[in-house]
Amino acid sequence: MAPRRIVLASRPVGIPRPEDFRIESDQVAEPGPGEFLLENHILSMDPAIRGFLDDRPSYLPPVAIGETVRGMTLGWVAKSRRADLPEGAYVRALAGWADMSLLGDALGLEKVDPAPGIRLESYMGALGPAGLTAWIGLNEIGRITPGDTVLVSAAAGAVGSVAGQIARLSGCRVVGLAGSPEKVQRLRELGYHAAIDYRAEPDLDAAIRAACPDGIDVYFDNVGGATLERMLPLMREHGRIVVCGMIEQYNDADHPHGVKTLWQLVVKRLTMRGFLTYDHADRLGEASAMLGEWVRSGELLPTETIYEGLERTPEAFIDLMSGRTMGKTLVRIRQ
Amino acid sequence: MAPRRIVLASRPVGIPRPEDFRIESDQVAEPGPGEFLLENHILSMDPAIRGFLDDRPSYLPPVAIGETVRGMTLGWVAKSRRADLPEGAYVRALAGWADMSLLGDALGLEKVDPAPGIRLESYMGALGPAGLTAWIGLNEIGRITPGDTVLVSAAAGAVGSVAGQIARLSGCRVVGLAGSPEKVQRLRELGYHAAIDYRAEPDLDAAIRAACPDGIDVYFDNVGGATLERMLPLMREHGRIVVCGMIEQYNDADHPHGVKTLWQLVVKRLTMRGFLTYDHADRLGEASAMLGEWVRSGELLPTETIYEGLERTPEAFIDLMSGRTMGKTLVRIRQ
Repeated sequence: MAPRRIVLASRPVGIPRPEDFRIESDQVAEPGPGEFLLENHILSMDPAIRGFLDDRPSYLPPVAIGETVRGMTLGWVAKSRRADLPEGAYVRALAGWADMSLLGDALGLEKVDPAPGIRLESYMGALGPAGLTAWIGLNEIGRITPGDTVLVSAAAGAVGSVAGQIARLSGCRVVGLAGSPEKVQRLRELGYHAAIDYRAEPDLDAAIRAACPDGIDVYFDNVGGATLERMLPLMREHGRIVVCGMIEQYNDADHPHGVKTLWQLVVKRLTMRGFLTYDHADRLGEASAMLGEWVRSGELLPTETIYEGLERTPEAFIDLMSGRTMGKTLVRIRQ
Repeated sequence: MAPRRIVLASRPVGIPRPEDFRIESDQVAEPGPGEFLLENHILSMDPAIRGFLDDRPSYLPPVAIGETVRGMTLGWVAKSRRADLPEGAYVRALAGWADMSLLGDALGLEKVDPAPGIRLESYMGALGPAGLTAWIGLNEIGRITPGDTVLVSAAAGAVGSVAGQIARLSGCRVVGLAGSPEKVQRLRELGYHAAIDYRAEPDLDAAIRAACPDGIDVYFDNVGGATLERMLPLMREHGRIVVCGMIEQYNDADHPHGVKTLWQLVVKRLTMRGFLTYDHADRLGEASAMLGEWVRSGELLPTETIYEGLERTPEAFIDLMSGRTMGKTLVRIRQ
């Protein structure tokens, strides 16, 4: 079968629609010196991709109309002219929504050595960028210590579902916010000490206060906006806010919510810090080892929503951006 | 003359008016065990006082109607039943707008030993809480290093006028924002490398970009609100935002500006941190010593606006909150 790819057909407004994407057959060139050809197996659906679809400078340039949508993939090196990446190696990289990717020095490029007894999918979830982000966010940015109360928003999401478990395994009290009864149920299975359905709760502040009677030491923020605004006054003195993502505004980056409670930063002497996981390369080995051990021992449960087939990628991404998926959202395009 | 005090007559709405305050004659009791009577010489006008006048919980309870307005004073111990504070000692404390204050264990209580050749007023400005706040903010929170570009808002204010000079003396490039030609002129005298009149500048972003061609490493924020919102996208990667004050919203704490650019925290991996100077007690000795040496040598120029007489205190405070004063705003109530 000829390789295929998914391109951006039009710039989405708000939540993307299927017609914003188009599947095309793809021409794949031979690798030149220093290049390699990656046969993609798993695509990672990430809110950050929504940012690449807007015509707005960010830490990476926008995806052009007609260009392959950019995203993390996990694949298998089919042809290589890079000595460090032999044919047959598994590689994770910021490539694109395509059967095959011709790459040189891609961002986030990393060899993956699947361990016996761990599914390949986990290397795109709990043992992939999402899990590493949760670990770095809690340890390097939030500086959790045993006994801390850690509140996680989008707690059933890719990063949140791992963050809560890491915090619990590190001796913290863990409270999760999620947006459906099914997600709240999953949080309980993951060992969250308290789980709050923010859509169902008539008095959300009261529910959070009841779950965090001494206030919040670390707020692991995946959503930003109005939720961040609400959380600032509920923080404990000297608390830390880990600014991991702001999914509340990704679908409408032109109209972000203005946060009015920043005065709490002074009142409570809070620290609020954004980060990119790969800035903390020196800690990633330790993070991978700890996460791998927890997954192997069954103490940390990976959570994934998996779609089958490249053609379902837009659907998977739209479901993610609509809050309909749980845990890490993946597309498996090859068994 | 019988001692007098200034009490809160009504809760201000917006910028305080003279009728929100009332001068009264005061009854002063004898000190009991552990107490002392402070003869106040200088009152410090601080934006934080505006917060005490609203009926809203903060790090201290609100001033009640009819109660003496709370504020920092520098005085002389007239009678004492505290062994560590003998009569004749100079003391700085969070006392109130009054000729005499009967105190026990007041907040911010500190003995002051005026050095030869340094005016008493400086111990309420560059060598007082404002100067210490500037030093702690830059060193402990902003972690300035030589070569950093440091932008200071309200740069001609009590804290800002010292912060810019500390940063310059520490080898940083220093850019100040202020709101009048006179203030901009003062910033140049204080050695700011660039000074911008934010009220006069038709394209403020362009002016800041021109003054900070590589972006801002440390934003020393005294104002919050719309200015903070504007500065976030102008920060350099890994920049630090020292959240010192939010004077833009003190006069109208019910309607704070919503900050819409917090996404920049992730894009630029920024750290934003609030603080209270007295949480950093372990560094205050070093800070005082450095500031004292710089003032003595003439490398750091204190800047003060001084009003004479207790009865002028409301006017001084209103002028401060209207942005009409420069440097540290003080009231001298006794020579």
